[in-house]
Amino acid sequence: METSQKSVTDIRFVCRGTFVHSTAEEALQILEDALLGVDSKGKVFLLIFCISCSEFFMPGMIDTHIHAPQYSYTGTALDMPLLQWLNTYTFPVESRFQDLEFAKKVYTQVVKRTLRNGTTTACYFATIHTDASLLLGQIANDFGQRALVGKVCMDRNDSVKHYKESSEESQEETYRFVKELLNKKYPLVKPVITPRFAPSCTEALLAKLGEMAKNNKLHIQSHISENLEEVEWVKELFPNSESYTDIYHKCNLLTDKTIMAHGCHLSDEELVLFRETGAALSHCPNSNISLCSGVLNVRNVLNHKVKLGLGTDVAGGYSPSILDAVRRALDSSKVLTIQDPEYKTLSFEEVFRLATLGGSQALSLDERTGNFQVGKDFDALRVNVAAPGGPIDLIQNEKPQVISHMRLSSLTCPLAGDDRNIVEVFVAGKKVVPFSEP
Amino acid sequence: METSQKSVTDIRFVCRGTFVHSTAEEALQILEDALLGVDSKGKVFLLIFCISCSEFFMPGMIDTHIHAPQYSYTGTALDMPLLQWLNTYTFPVESRFQDLEFAKKVYTQVVKRTLRNGTTTACYFATIHTDASLLLGQIANDFGQRALVGKVCMDRNDSVKHYKESSEESQEETYRFVKELLNKKYPLVKPVITPRFAPSCTEALLAKLGEMAKNNKLHIQSHISENLEEVEWVKELFPNSESYTDIYHKCNLLTDKTIMAHGCHLSDEELVLFRETGAALSHCPNSNISLCSGVLNVRNVLNHKVKLGLGTDVAGGYSPSILDAVRRALDSSKVLTIQDPEYKTLSFEEVFRLATLGGSQALSLDERTGNFQVGKDFDALRVNVAAPGGPIDLIQNEKPQVISHMRLSSLTCPLAGDDRNIVEVFVAGKKVVPFSEP
Ligand SMILES: [Zn+2]
Ligand SMILES: [Zn+2]
Repeated sequence: METSQKSVTDIRFVCRGTFVHSTAEEALQILEDALLGVDSKGKVFLLIFCISCSEFFMPGMIDTHIHAPQYSYTGTALDMPLLQWLNTYTFPVESRFQDLEFAKKVYTQVVKRTLRNGTTTACYFATIHTDASLLLGQIANDFGQRALVGKVCMDRNDSVKHYKESSEESQEETYRFVKELLNKKYPLVKPVITPRFAPSCTEALLAKLGEMAKNNKLHIQSHISENLEEVEWVKELFPNSESYTDIYHKCNLLTDKTIMAHGCHLSDEELVLFRETGAALSHCPNSNISLCSGVLNVRNVLNHKVKLGLGTDVAGGYSPSILDAVRRALDSSKVLTIQDPEYKTLSFEEVFRLATLGGSQALSLDERTGNFQVGKDFDALRVNVAAPGGPIDLIQNEKPQVISHMRLSSLTCPLAGDDRNIVEVFVAGKKVVPFSEP
Repeated sequence: METSQKSVTDIRFVCRGTFVHSTAEEALQILEDALLGVDSKGKVFLLIFCISCSEFFMPGMIDTHIHAPQYSYTGTALDMPLLQWLNTYTFPVESRFQDLEFAKKVYTQVVKRTLRNGTTTACYFATIHTDASLLLGQIANDFGQRALVGKVCMDRNDSVKHYKESSEESQEETYRFVKELLNKKYPLVKPVITPRFAPSCTEALLAKLGEMAKNNKLHIQSHISENLEEVEWVKELFPNSESYTDIYHKCNLLTDKTIMAHGCHLSDEELVLFRETGAALSHCPNSNISLCSGVLNVRNVLNHKVKLGLGTDVAGGYSPSILDAVRRALDSSKVLTIQDPEYKTLSFEEVFRLATLGGSQALSLDERTGNFQVGKDFDALRVNVAAPGGPIDLIQNEKPQVISHMRLSSLTCPLAGDDRNIVEVFVAGKKVVPFSEP
């Protein structure tokens, strides 16, 4: 790691502690007794070694796929597969977000809840409503969360009255959304072009959105190949396309700023197309299990060198915590090993990287965030494994060989931890949790 | 539900609220606006209807399989399959429990931590050390937890020096353990005969333990058919037995007071033997996934009418919470549905029953605990879905149809909840959490 000279006036603060993050070379690098400096712009300018205890810093976690409006029913309603679930629960609830007061309530909750769980960067689906989606951007900015926010586009949904837009409306409102959000000049919040998924959009709309993204170098997000019924349906709806991936590709929606959720049932050929275009996948293991959608073969995705991050997919996933996604990703990988002992289970270190650096790469934000590399913004969590009132008991003053080996792994592999162990959250060098009093 | 007459002096207290529990007829019965009375002996004597809010009562949860000493390394060291894991982590740590001071520290932590997580009844494996195992019984009694406690027997372990006993020692010490624990006359803590598992015991020892259990009508616990390598090893060690189950059966270790952990790879014939003898299984889904052991086909076990409860299997499972076991049991069942769409996924209600009533039946304690039936002890949790500082956000004053339908499911299906939502814990009518000040 390089360090660089700084004049004293440029320094905002210096933290001392153990820093744990991923780098390109090392899935999990543990910097014990280190000193990290943050400059007046919130960027890391210094990282040198120097303490040790039950506290450490790690990069803020990155939720590459979350539906902000669906937070209103998290942890419920997981009793049916995807397509019925959308019609029964999702669309009726999302249609309520034209009510800005309701939207403000739920969006404030979701931003605060995810920050408290250590999500320093979130890639949000909102709803079709432009003003409510702008409000989500404002709330993320107000609380200091780094975010991509997408107004959802869907001109082909026939299942729920009042939750559909015409193709023209969808284009015009997306244009207005992007323009107004960019005009706010929020330092950490950007718009993302968001067709819900191929089955809810006409090819004409997809093509227009691809064009808009291309002309303005915008981020793009959608869903792909989540469950088998959906894959079959897409084949019927788009009989002239070679594959699900091909539909998006033909519409200029696969770029190096694209993130697609799920991809459980992609073929190897489709993965190759992802790699070639630089498009990324968001692995949402809680959702995939909860809705019985499928189990993503992460090892195969990594072998294809496709960029990959983790997502909660609230409310298909019932937890707003990326730490939960870490646990579920490990579980899913172990399920694949149970099915096929030859399958190389993901290590904790690899999943840690997906939750941080991998997520930043998948969102094409890795120049700004994802680890503690000098020059990046300081997006970080201060973790206290022994936080008072927290879920983990440590045995103090007990250090025989076997215990202390496992203690180290409990520091870096806090499988039993939760938001109570996340005592401070920083985004771009600013402390955003605990929340400052209004 | 019947109610009965009580003189006023017999009444300890009456609670008002929503009670949620399982009965033989109904997997999930929700008694809104009910009144429940507890008499001076801690037993339910009254259950009538009458309130409604974000709080409700549910039966205390039952952990049918947990290794108390292994709590010292929960959440770590899950990087290898069962047999290596035992030799590398488990045995070296368990051997330390001859040190009573160390044992007191860890056992106090595990009893408090499980109580705080709503485990009102726990079926514990201790270690081979009689005095430390007696101490675990004392600590459970002191904190008011209902518990079965087993001194572990293993006369055939060659992997770790100093953690083995001779066959005679094992018998004599088990006899002393049972006698001394019964002499304490703890109202809620009982001994359980505990051969670790067939591979670590000689057939002679197993037979002696079976005889001791039979003569004294004692509970029995062990492990069975957890992973495939173990199953193969057992075949080699016991070439004259028809099956893993048959080994225990021939030694009188399968009775209606027996609980065996895991059973992932049992044949249908073996399940029939379980039903015929009245022996029960403990499903430990977190452990089974974490150690890549296998996925229990719970539906098949239920179809065979074998008694079944949930277990954390700390530290093979990384969470001391039965609420986690509920989530993992649902996940495991959904994984089976992903593999075979014909597989009938477990419902939340069914898993709720396993965590409460099912557990009490599996431990043959259902005359005393498991639900709110009149005459049973009041083992209960007061749950506040909206507990301040807790993990769940509720949207207040929002009750349109679709939301309120889901709200109900969020009350009864607290997938996003944790110990912060468990605001009070009662065992046999006595409030045990929050802990009273010393
Ligand atoms: Zn989604
Ligand atoms: Zn066990």
